[in-house]
Amino acid sequence: MIKVKNNLKEPRITLVGAGPGDAELITIKGIKALQTADVVLYDALVNEELLEFAPANATKVYVGKRSGDHSFSQDNINKLMIDYALNYGHVVRLKGGDPFVFGRGYEELDHAADYSIPAQVIPGISSSIGVPGLQQIPVTHRGMAESFWVITGTTTNGQISGDLFQAAKTRATVVVLMGLHKLAEIVEIYKQEGKGKLPVAVIQSGSTENEKVAIGVVDTIVEVVDEQKIASPALIVLGDVVSLHPKFQPIREFYDIVAQE
Amino acid sequence: MIKVKNNLKEPRITLVGAGPGDAELITIKGIKALQTADVVLYDALVNEELLEFAPANATKVYVGKRSGDHSFSQDNINKLMIDYALNYGHVVRLKGGDPFVFGRGYEELDHAADYSIPAQVIPGISSSIGVPGLQQIPVTHRGMAESFWVITGTTTNGQISGDLFQAAKTRATVVVLMGLHKLAEIVEIYKQEGKGKLPVAVIQSGSTENEKVAIGVVDTIVEVVDEQKIASPALIVLGDVVSLHPKFQPIREFYDIVAQE
Repeated sequence: MIKVKNNLKEPRITLVGAGPGDAELITIKGIKALQTADVVLYDALVNEELLEFAPANATKVYVGKRSGDHSFSQDNINKLMIDYALNYGHVVRLKGGDPFVFGRGYEELDHAADYSIPAQVIPGISSSIGVPGLQQIPVTHRGMAESFWVITGTTTNGQISGDLFQAAKTRATVVVLMGLHKLAEIVEIYKQEGKGKLPVAVIQSGSTENEKVAIGVVDTIVEVVDEQKIASPALIVLGDVVSLHPKFQPIREFYDIVAQE
Repeated sequence: MIKVKNNLKEPRITLVGAGPGDAELITIKGIKALQTADVVLYDALVNEELLEFAPANATKVYVGKRSGDHSFSQDNINKLMIDYALNYGHVVRLKGGDPFVFGRGYEELDHAADYSIPAQVIPGISSSIGVPGLQQIPVTHRGMAESFWVITGTTTNGQISGDLFQAAKTRATVVVLMGLHKLAEIVEIYKQEGKGKLPVAVIQSGSTENEKVAIGVVDTIVEVVDEQKIASPALIVLGDVVSLHPKFQPIREFYDIVAQE
């Protein structure tokens, strides 16, 4: 299927984190890797403007799993990556966010090692920190959160991660990635812990022109998300730090009035 | 103390995450902010090569708290930031890692708001993800870790964060920043949970030429860190994902042999 080029280039693979969406949130090192790419394999959430940094004659292949095309399973991506490296040289595997934050990056690295192809990793801005940060919601803040806990909303078996039940018991800022479809379940877990008034933010398409932000508390966030028609990709932030967002001010005032009555 | 320039520039402040140390791990957006800086206030862990992106006539001020100079308390940094913005225009506050990961970034943002000075945040690569990642230790990996929990080793009161006691009970990958001086205490917490064989990495000065990596398990890591003379700044990674590091292979073999005897 893949045309074999007769070249002398050494095969190598670089996993590059493209960041949360804004093309300018890639690192200088990531750009430099792209500039020397013979092939770029890129995911659905990667900003396509970044492809312009690759040489004009580099092969650019979309391998987004969201396409609904079964040819882009993880196994197929792994296989493509190896075939291209052996035949073309430097493959840049451009991934949304950071390659190791639910990006299955290590599986790709491991696959490269099976073929003795040298592989390097260039970190990217993870949405888990950067997207709340761009909304000026700090994942940590003195007196409010001494830690943050990042959890996937989509485990291998399709169930909610067991870690979330533990997370709801702690004072950590909790960030759930790829969990919008589980929001009602997540909210239920927090209610069981008596945390109905804990501030929550849901941020869609952070750092892009489609960005939308819903701010509420555990008891109200499902409704707010519905009202604002928030859609995936979106992340959920649960914790007192969300109260620092300007949109939380009227919510605080509302609860203060209720408390006084 | 600060010379008042008679200019027409609007005061503004940009908090920029400089990344873990390697100058090329800053974002394009961070570089663009530096290029329009009138003043750069930079921290101890920031790579000084980045200052070259600021205009030659920009004022560059080191405000590292590690200097032992009491003039650089957080209050003084906040004050300097405001004074420079009012008198010079665009202040870039260049911070190690990401501004909101134990960077006290929100305090600076809040201070800017008190003076009605517009402030923006540009995320950076947090060491918590990027430094293990550069060592090819993924903070998450299917079947191994569905989440990661980042905790400060240095709380306001100088004590270990209470969150660590909870973290030791979970399956999350735990990353402790600024916690090398508490390593013995942290290890004790994990031992209490019967996790003496849990893989641990301690990484000093990640992404820089001074990088050093110690790999062991909870029971041995204090000794390995001593042997390798690991010093601050360093971060600690606790979790099964550390077993993916090549240096863990002989440790695994050792325990396998012990188990067979």
